[in-house]
Amino acid sequence: MMIVMKEGATQSEIDAVVKRVRSVGADAHISQGELVTVIGAIGDREHVANLGLEGAPGVDHLVPILKPYKLASLEYRRGVRSVVEIDGRKIGGDHFATIAGPCTVESREVLLTAAQTVKDAGAQMLRGGAYKPRTSPYSFQGLGEAGLRLLSEAKEETGLPIVTELMDVRDLDAVAEVADVIQLGARNMQNYSLLTEVGRSGKPVLLKRGLSATLEELLMAAEYVLKEGNNDVLLCERGIRTYEPSYRFTLDLMAVPVLRELTHLPIVIDPSHAAGKRSLVEPLSLAAAAAGADGVIVEVHPCPEEAVCDGPQALVAEEFDMYLRKLEAAAELAGKTFERV
Amino acid sequence: MMIVMKEGATQSEIDAVVKRVRSVGADAHISQGELVTVIGAIGDREHVANLGLEGAPGVDHLVPILKPYKLASLEYRRGVRSVVEIDGRKIGGDHFATIAGPCTVESREVLLTAAQTVKDAGAQMLRGGAYKPRTSPYSFQGLGEAGLRLLSEAKEETGLPIVTELMDVRDLDAVAEVADVIQLGARNMQNYSLLTEVGRSGKPVLLKRGLSATLEELLMAAEYVLKEGNNDVLLCERGIRTYEPSYRFTLDLMAVPVLRELTHLPIVIDPSHAAGKRSLVEPLSLAAAAAGADGVIVEVHPCPEEAVCDGPQALVAEEFDMYLRKLEAAAELAGKTFERV
Amino acid sequence: MMIVMKEGATQSEIDAVVKRVRSVGADAHISQGELVTVIGAIGDREHVANLGLEGAPGVDHLVPILKPYKLASLEYRRGVRSVVEIDGRKIGGDHFATIAGPCTVESREVLLTAAQTVKDAGAQMLRGGAYKPRTSPYSFQGLGEAGLRLLSEAKEETGLPIVTELMDVRDLDAVAEVADVIQLGARNMQNYSLLTEVGRSGKPVLLKRGLSATLEELLMAAEYVLKEGNNDVLLCERGIRTYEPSYRFTLDLMAVPVLRELTHLPIVIDPSHAAGKRSLVEPLSLAAAAAGADGVIVEVHPCPEEAVCDGPQALVAEEFDMYLRKLEAAAELAGKTFERV
Amino acid sequence: MMIVMKEGATQSEIDAVVKRVRSVGADAHISQGELVTVIGAIGDREHVANLGLEGAPGVDHLVPILKPYKLASLEYRRGVRSVVEIDGRKIGGDHFATIAGPCTVESREVLLTAAQTVKDAGAQMLRGGAYKPRTSPYSFQGLGEAGLRLLSEAKEETGLPIVTELMDVRDLDAVAEVADVIQLGARNMQNYSLLTEVGRSGKPVLLKRGLSATLEELLMAAEYVLKEGNNDVLLCERGIRTYEPSYRFTLDLMAVPVLRELTHLPIVIDPSHAAGKRSLVEPLSLAAAAAGADGVIVEVHPCPEEAVCDGPQALVAEEFDMYLRKLEAAAELAGKTFERV
Repeated sequence: MMIVMKEGATQSEIDAVVKRVRSVGADAHISQGELVTVIGAIGDREHVANLGLEGAPGVDHLVPILKPYKLASLEYRRGVRSVVEIDGRKIGGDHFATIAGPCTVESREVLLTAAQTVKDAGAQMLRGGAYKPRTSPYSFQGLGEAGLRLLSEAKEETGLPIVTELMDVRDLDAVAEVADVIQLGARNMQNYSLLTEVGRSGKPVLLKRGLSATLEELLMAAEYVLKEGNNDVLLCERGIRTYEPSYRFTLDLMAVPVLRELTHLPIVIDPSHAAGKRSLVEPLSLAAAAAGADGVIVEVHPCPEEAVCDGPQALVAEEFDMYLRKLEAAAELAGKTFERV
Repeated sequence: MMIVMKEGATQSEIDAVVKRVRSVGADAHISQGELVTVIGAIGDREHVANLGLEGAPGVDHLVPILKPYKLASLEYRRGVRSVVEIDGRKIGGDHFATIAGPCTVESREVLLTAAQTVKDAGAQMLRGGAYKPRTSPYSFQGLGEAGLRLLSEAKEETGLPIVTELMDVRDLDAVAEVADVIQLGARNMQNYSLLTEVGRSGKPVLLKRGLSATLEELLMAAEYVLKEGNNDVLLCERGIRTYEPSYRFTLDLMAVPVLRELTHLPIVIDPSHAAGKRSLVEPLSLAAAAAGADGVIVEVHPCPEEAVCDGPQALVAEEFDMYLRKLEAAAELAGKTFERV
Repeated sequence: MMIVMKEGATQSEIDAVVKRVRSVGADAHISQGELVTVIGAIGDREHVANLGLEGAPGVDHLVPILKPYKLASLEYRRGVRSVVEIDGRKIGGDHFATIAGPCTVESREVLLTAAQTVKDAGAQMLRGGAYKPRTSPYSFQGLGEAGLRLLSEAKEETGLPIVTELMDVRDLDAVAEVADVIQLGARNMQNYSLLTEVGRSGKPVLLKRGLSATLEELLMAAEYVLKEGNNDVLLCERGIRTYEPSYRFTLDLMAVPVLRELTHLPIVIDPSHAAGKRSLVEPLSLAAAAAGADGVIVEVHPCPEEAVCDGPQALVAEEFDMYLRKLEAAAELAGKTFERV
Repeated sequence: MMIVMKEGATQSEIDAVVKRVRSVGADAHISQGELVTVIGAIGDREHVANLGLEGAPGVDHLVPILKPYKLASLEYRRGVRSVVEIDGRKIGGDHFATIAGPCTVESREVLLTAAQTVKDAGAQMLRGGAYKPRTSPYSFQGLGEAGLRLLSEAKEETGLPIVTELMDVRDLDAVAEVADVIQLGARNMQNYSLLTEVGRSGKPVLLKRGLSATLEELLMAAEYVLKEGNNDVLLCERGIRTYEPSYRFTLDLMAVPVLRELTHLPIVIDPSHAAGKRSLVEPLSLAAAAAGADGVIVEVHPCPEEAVCDGPQALVAEEFDMYLRKLEAAAELAGKTFERV
């Protein structure tokens, strides 16, 4: 932590800061500039942060130097990228994976048809929500446990691992029984009890970035899971909030190469929700793969215009095969292998 | 819902949309412009929204006309503002209230001293967190149940109603036993199970706006609580995320007069977290009151530089009395009464 | 400038950075932490910045320590606030001023009526645009020189100093002949030739913050004017761009107390453009004054519903007197005197 | 334009709006919903907009239906994409082009070396700034006319067309003499006199999106140029401002497929400024091409660590050839031809 003093801070103000830094066992290292003095506090980040020096007399501002996450950092794994293996499907490192399926589990027929399409085209996992976070209390909230049973059936039929969302910690056992990967939605990225409990469950986690979460906050959320001994975390960018009114969300593809420099965890892109519109999904998916993403999670529906939820952004089943061929080429451009199971 | 067709949409595309609108029992009303046709769908908002017409052939975009919230709207109460009464303290309508206390419950002594200061100066309620949402899993997470017991003691000593945060639905009973107002934090604004359960508890709720929540989303979150029959919802603006790097959060004071035109619910401003700095708290509080807010929630600490958490933004106890006098004058300027209990 | 090295940076990488820092005459001061080394470069900010060390081997990132603006900083004037005097009207320090008038100069009658209203109520200056920046090339672009002549006439009749916008450097002489304060619009905040020329003109400047300009960028824009020897700069916050769809712009009132800690220059708030709606102008104005602003610039129109431009946000003339009385009370709350000429 | 009335608007308020709509020659078309009445105003957009109905009694809000730009719209060209031809190099439609070179023209040697590298690798145009917009008045502002002469020499030597920035309308003739494409920077996107004059010059224009400009505003800025009869406009996305602190700017790649649905104009991506870091430039470039961009503009420097400006983000000359091969593959994935001159 660097403590930048104000112009004109007095010697006794500087001394007081140094004293407090040393009081928590940290070293204080003073750089005297012409106008401003900077005090480097070398020691435990949390201890120094807890001193609350931002308010101290003569202090202008604080600059953290060390990253606040440890287990999620690329340095922690000495630059080796994590490969998460889910029922034989690899994602991360050189392995690219596609997770596809309907937004919501809405009926047995739709789910099984979608699952078969996804499998036939060569996607690696099946997505589908039994519990749906909805802005409006008057909207359809998902089939709940009945939906979980249908996902279980789809898995049995196709052999595809299941990715499905958990919203309430009280549903953890039920979801964990069916899910191969537990999805935590953007609105729950900082739901710390959920993160901790999912960490303890040991199940692979797909952790979506909050609508206005910084990359550092995303990695700190992952740290909550990793800290419980669960190393199988997939980070997912799904669109952030900006001022631009013509998008539902602004898909932040810059996160892909930047996260790759910060963390060893695999990075998955969800283009469907940001786009909100079928025609944008393919170009955004190709861009994600070309930028170096480790996977995409995408909506496919046998008959989007009859979908209960988010139909307009779902890829049409018959076009999904072609989509996957192009995606494969884009992933290869970034040095990834697109595995067929 | 208005359905705006693309330039050059064909008659059969228009007919198809009209047919689908009518299929859910809504009326379709066609406006033919020189370039573009607009179809007004008059009927149940949810039904029409669920048609997923954004993707339909010939459709350019949809424009919702009706507000998605009902119980929270000013029209629902025919323009009459809600007054929430908490153990005899009124907030809303013409009544301004101040909620003050330490960020975190950290020790018996600090809490009781702060509570006495807050009471003596004339604030209406005591705040203090027993459960703290922290970005880092390595930070202090609050005293938990021990903190709740201390809050209970502070209430007994001072008679001040307690405002404290609930983070995990499993802690609801424990928190509800002590709290007079249950606070839901910004990161939980769209934690729908929490909203629903707190709605069912019947306890007054202080609902903080998410870091990048729109006003409409804030009102939809309130709607989750109201829908369960709990009318005592206080909305709280606490700073949003913008591009400006010199603020922790950008306190959105424009929300005050805009929300007053949308909803009957009382509006409380939390200047402390956005400011992150003591010197900004007073001007922001005065601004909030002058803009027409119904209350502020503010951090006060007997000895901020020893605070476990967020000390630099806490008002110093001995200055709190003067702060409250100025706040009173600002609230009066906006036509509010600042009640002494 | 602090140069933060990567974890695992080698000694020779550190040495190379030190060598380059010293090559421009700066001192290098090394803090060796457990994980990371930080090199403080003490010397001319521009020289060090120009080294382009962000890309150097082993460098993680750079942290500037000194503020990039000098003349605009509060320290430069040793904490003494600037008072700008415009034809006998003071603004800044303890002096609050109101600038009011129609958005655009649209006709002789409207302008003169508005000017008289503004003067009778006790505002200090008259605003009105002869050149209007318009998003659309198909919108009315202002009366141009004819508008300037009308402003000149309004000044003669009422004695009020004139605030009017300059958009094109080629119009500088014509505008400077009529204007007592030259307004630079938000879209021109980083129009560097305009800033420089207006700086050279010696005329007082009202400099509007860009739609997404940081406070530092605003102060750097002011620095362009100050550097030419023109000290009469008024900073103006007029709403920034955020994700919130229910505002035209988000009026950033937090800028008021924060700017007061950074600069000696007076701070003016323009609530009309952000609001876009008459009913919001008064609460936002009172909030601005209570937060410590040095003035407001506000739209008043004798008959807003017939205004050529931005009528809906203009205050109605007959209510302007009452508005000004309340504003006076709010300014006094923040320790300002509201002068009558 | 749709005029949405408030709940409870009276019949006489509705009648008054209808009357005003008709007064400018527009048709009024009334949709009466259960709660809310919507009035469609069918006629000239500008005329109706100028009515200022937002403030009228009983009016809740206005919804524009027609797009405000005409010449820039895809519909205007009936879906046919523009191909801009610059000295034999095509960009737009199926043609992908790469514009490369140093950020700033800093010396004869650097410029000529860079130009040769760029040409040898097969890029289509040379970039380089003689006039540089700089946040700080104390930073290097470019070589000005001397820089233009060097660009002219580089063109003679390599035959590459020149892309260079114009900042001040007074420099138009000098710049137009050397430039094959005049670049308008992000900070000048809404400098309307500059747009108009450049439109009149007839020179091809590379128009950069403002830091917080919406796509609609970008297209309106293009409309200022097109309106003067200059059809050769290239739109350039170069990073927008978001809350994310770990990027200089957030490169908005979503703009590529969305703009392709709105406009016929070619879309160029500038990954260098947003990245601010060499390692991010390649993945972002590949992503841009895969998403369907028509070109990239990228910084290349023979010796980035000695660059006067923005060295850390410049590609190293010896790696540029390989970069271009990969970019070619990504562009082909999106159906583009990467032309060699």
